[in-house]
Amino acid sequence: MPDPVHPPSATAAAAAWARQATLTKPAGALGRLEAASVWLAAVQDACPPRPFARPALVILAGDHGVARTAGTSAYPPEVTAQMVANFVSGGAAANVLARQVGATVRVVDVGVDAEPAYLDAVDPAVAARRIRRGTGSVDREDAMSRAEAEAAIALGRALADEEIDAGADVLIAGDMGIGNTTPAAALIGVLTDSDADAVTGRGTGIDDATYTRKRRAVAAALARGREVADDPVGLLACIGSADIAAMAGLLSRAAERGRPAVLDGIVSCSAALVADRLAPGARDWWAAGHLSTEPAAGLALAHLDRQPLLDLDLRLGEGTGALLALPLLEAAARTLAQMATFADAGVSDRAE
Amino acid sequence: MPDPVHPPSATAAAAAWARQATLTKPAGALGRLEAASVWLAAVQDACPPRPFARPALVILAGDHGVARTAGTSAYPPEVTAQMVANFVSGGAAANVLARQVGATVRVVDVGVDAEPAYLDAVDPAVAARRIRRGTGSVDREDAMSRAEAEAAIALGRALADEEIDAGADVLIAGDMGIGNTTPAAALIGVLTDSDADAVTGRGTGIDDATYTRKRRAVAAALARGREVADDPVGLLACIGSADIAAMAGLLSRAAERGRPAVLDGIVSCSAALVADRLAPGARDWWAAGHLSTEPAAGLALAHLDRQPLLDLDLRLGEGTGALLALPLLEAAARTLAQMATFADAGVSDRAE
Repeated sequence: MPDPVHPPSATAAAAAWARQATLTKPAGALGRLEAASVWLAAVQDACPPRPFARPALVILAGDHGVARTAGTSAYPPEVTAQMVANFVSGGAAANVLARQVGATVRVVDVGVDAEPAYLDAVDPAVAARRIRRGTGSVDREDAMSRAEAEAAIALGRALADEEIDAGADVLIAGDMGIGNTTPAAALIGVLTDSDADAVTGRGTGIDDATYTRKRRAVAAALARGREVADDPVGLLACIGSADIAAMAGLLSRAAERGRPAVLDGIVSCSAALVADRLAPGARDWWAAGHLSTEPAAGLALAHLDRQPLLDLDLRLGEGTGALLALPLLEAAARTLAQMATFADAGVSDRAE
Repeated sequence: MPDPVHPPSATAAAAAWARQATLTKPAGALGRLEAASVWLAAVQDACPPRPFARPALVILAGDHGVARTAGTSAYPPEVTAQMVANFVSGGAAANVLARQVGATVRVVDVGVDAEPAYLDAVDPAVAARRIRRGTGSVDREDAMSRAEAEAAIALGRALADEEIDAGADVLIAGDMGIGNTTPAAALIGVLTDSDADAVTGRGTGIDDATYTRKRRAVAAALARGREVADDPVGLLACIGSADIAAMAGLLSRAAERGRPAVLDGIVSCSAALVADRLAPGARDWWAAGHLSTEPAAGLALAHLDRQPLLDLDLRLGEGTGALLALPLLEAAARTLAQMATFADAGVSDRAE
């Protein structure tokens, strides 16, 4: 079913490095923006690259049984559905940041644990493609069936196709789901071969007692997941969730289509690790927006060899850290495209 | 001559923290953007604050005798004048980034070591207020006379007044000057009581032999400057430069007028340390745009208790790191102003 992932253009990347060396600044003085400009050139197969004109944020929402059974979150599960309504009405942080950078926002209920009627007042279409209602508690039971995991991946792939066909030139997969850092941490633990202490964070801001429960739940999920570590679909069914599976489908499909994506926090990073298994090489199509305070996010990014642009102690998810990085990517594209060269400006280079 | 610096509004800051707590996100989840939003509220005396509408970049250019006599830079001194022309014609990195964020750009030749005729072809007004041509080599002689340091400070103060009177709502002081990281490092060494090893960096990218010469020049300048450590004007005359003195005047005057500024790299940070001596309390009006690769910049920011927003391995100066931070400050203002509250959106807070 999946198409092979072709690597981004090495020719355009080489041209971008060469062009950087001609610009009126000390070599390397724009630091990480220079590497970002090279990535942009490679994924657009164009030197100089253009700033992204049509970023598309797709927020994948779902509930997680482990939040209810193991008490791993600071917020009640009802908040997931409430926040979906907040996205639809434009009041969440992701909406505000998307407006700032001109990104479209689409929210999809992949697995919210609420009667679909919760959306009647706002937009019934949001829940029209739901895969299942909530998930099993991954510390003790499968999140979902293999067929459901496959359906969720297919949904994510379809969403990527829809956004790309509508003109999106960069994708961001945002998350919303009370409890979602528990399966995300477990997935990252399995796929980076890390233990529960290394991957368990404070999520939305939990106290010590909740942290102890969460760490225990992550350890149990990790042990269950290690049994199917080499089977990405089985792993999603075992300790993932419908929303994370859809996100993995979206990210892998975008790479197959040759479209870049900007990664966000821990949930996005967990989906990216799975997506790179589903579609080997997909990682090269992704930039890392930021380094979350969740320790597992940094482990996942290091495993994917992606260096985050921002480090602002963010721990919100929704795609916010990726949206915040878009102006930096714009700056990377603009400097490479618009700066004068030493020759044009009559400025002496160091070699002279 | 100086007016007292009034502190930014504590009332608006308290209102901003209180408003953050009502927004539909986990407490603290926007990380450093939340503190930035509080700073914006305080310096604007308004909650919620507005995104900056009229950022003004003033680039202060000057040459540094130490680059010629002690060979501390990777680039020849002629590049300073060439780059001034590049700013005027809009081809430098600072121009590109200013266009992206809607900032005005003004370049002022405060002490370039070239015949003023070098600007005839582009804009003679740029050199019309020059204080002196180049500076003494600060490892062995004074940079300039005390009267010249005072005149340079007065020029910077006048530039701040002109920009503010023209409507600027945030100021950025950018630098251009081959060799300028040597006096900047020495100033920071004196004012943070650090030694030459701690403050000497690789500037525009110098090799080991040049680094050894630079470190020796910084150590010599540091020793000279420690004799006048308690006299900021004397210190600028002894081991500073006309452009850094003007920058200190600009930053201190902006704070006196109650206008915020965003700091850039090592040169900007050295001027800020002096400005906070000239106008005690001025630091509260400043945000730190980024952490330069120059080690002295981080020491200065820590001394000023300013936490940088970006850390992108930048080492270009010109105000570039401050310009890159403006979209983050915009995001901080927008999220505080536009996000829905728990009450408005019907979202359950953790306490419920």
